[in-house]
Amino acid sequence: MGTALARAWLAAGHPVTVWNRTPARAEALAAEGATVARSAAEAVAANRLVILCLLDDDSVGAALDGAALTGRDLVNLTTGTPAQGRARAAWAEERGARFLDGGIMAVPPMIGAADSGAYVFYSGSAGLFEEHGETLAVPAGTRYVGADPGFAALHDVALLSAMYGMFAGLSHAFALIGGEDIRPQDLAPLLVEWLAAMAPAAAHASAAALERGDYTKDVTSNLAMQVASTSTLVRTAEEQGVSTELLTPVWDLMARRLADGHGEEDTTGVIDLLRAR
Amino acid sequence: MGTALARAWLAAGHPVTVWNRTPARAEALAAEGATVARSAAEAVAANRLVILCLLDDDSVGAALDGAALTGRDLVNLTTGTPAQGRARAAWAEERGARFLDGGIMAVPPMIGAADSGAYVFYSGSAGLFEEHGETLAVPAGTRYVGADPGFAALHDVALLSAMYGMFAGLSHAFALIGGEDIRPQDLAPLLVEWLAAMAPAAAHASAAALERGDYTKDVTSNLAMQVASTSTLVRTAEEQGVSTELLTPVWDLMARRLADGHGEEDTTGVIDLLRAR
Repeated sequence: MGTALARAWLAAGHPVTVWNRTPARAEALAAEGATVARSAAEAVAANRLVILCLLDDDSVGAALDGAALTGRDLVNLTTGTPAQGRARAAWAEERGARFLDGGIMAVPPMIGAADSGAYVFYSGSAGLFEEHGETLAVPAGTRYVGADPGFAALHDVALLSAMYGMFAGLSHAFALIGGEDIRPQDLAPLLVEWLAAMAPAAAHASAAALERGDYTKDVTSNLAMQVASTSTLVRTAEEQGVSTELLTPVWDLMARRLADGHGEEDTTGVIDLLRAR
Repeated sequence: MGTALARAWLAAGHPVTVWNRTPARAEALAAEGATVARSAAEAVAANRLVILCLLDDDSVGAALDGAALTGRDLVNLTTGTPAQGRARAAWAEERGARFLDGGIMAVPPMIGAADSGAYVFYSGSAGLFEEHGETLAVPAGTRYVGADPGFAALHDVALLSAMYGMFAGLSHAFALIGGEDIRPQDLAPLLVEWLAAMAPAAAHASAAALERGDYTKDVTSNLAMQVASTSTLVRTAEEQGVSTELLTPVWDLMARRLADGHGEEDTTGVIDLLRAR
């Protein structure tokens, strides 16, 4: 990812000084116009805007140990948790640097590619973000989500987590047609269309219900009906020889919420159960 | 659902004879032009095209026990499993009827509404579907998915199952921001946009991998990298006080596939593990 980012700025004509723990990786960028620093401290000294993209948060602390950070603008694109983003922001401020944390919503081939849809969540110093906004927009789109330096990672993790739930659902669906005379490539567009229709309905309904604190308004299919209908889904998986292990947990939480007397709600109550454990 | 369907055909000017185990429900449709039958057998005798929409498959067998089905065209919109659809098709053919099974991808308020996006998967008798296609298209769109009478239910269940995986992912995402100064209504559009971008990529990649039988081609983020990155998702959930119970199963299957030596694949191998249990 670091190489892809550096390449995007170099291609746009920005002066870039690079450092990598593996010198060969940095040297490869020299041919594209990068200045290669012999140490992280030397790279930090080269420009006011410093982009950090390392293995993990510990690597950031280790690489910058001893570097002069006063007056630097640190943009941390290293993957981490919200708490790590907050702690790293406090660490940077103690050392006299402004700090912006970022969560990259893309894989490296999307970086610097026009219309790839790649973007980065940023949170932390609004001043840093405003001052370097155009530069930050070179490798990918930018979305500032707040002064709290944990919010970039929190948004990043929320979206990735939602994606793994969708992966789980898609995996179950494809498993169901295994052994049947149905081509996966014929099922795929039906799944995509269905999820594209259901995602906004589900997300906006839950968001509205959460903000109201009332999960019983504008319910098109209530929890009692939905829990009853899951028996057909479970029986079908059994018939098809497919484990329900990816979906049993959400159906179990729906059933528990129903058992708690919330049959007239939509499924938003599942969110409360996840936070109450 | 039965009432919504009858209403759509009545509104379109079709002669409709109705029967319901609860006579008041049938009577309510009389005011809209329906003929009310005193028994299911009498309703079946009224027209060649017979739409069945009952509580479950057992109710279909019970309601039609003794009805003269020879020469009838039965369209079964009762929720059921693929095996129930196949068994009911054989049952209908033994009694001299053509049979089409249907899986309704809609809730009742969407039936008969223009541009609601509602549609019905149909499978079974192609002759019946062609002959009554225009009539069947009145309450909702129609999609014929094959002569196998189990395929309508199988498609229906596959899409609904995928949806519950997506619900699980969305629920986890909303749980993560609970207690933070982030509005659910601000997160919702980001989630929707992200899932809309990821669903086609994931579904088409898995479909192509399944058809090739090789899960290592055109992999943008391999299983080894994805499993490594889940630790940040797990740690973030712990920091935010959110149970990972909805996502742990898919992450566990990914880790098992990796442990089996498939780190260079995408996540398609999870589908094989679901079928091997």
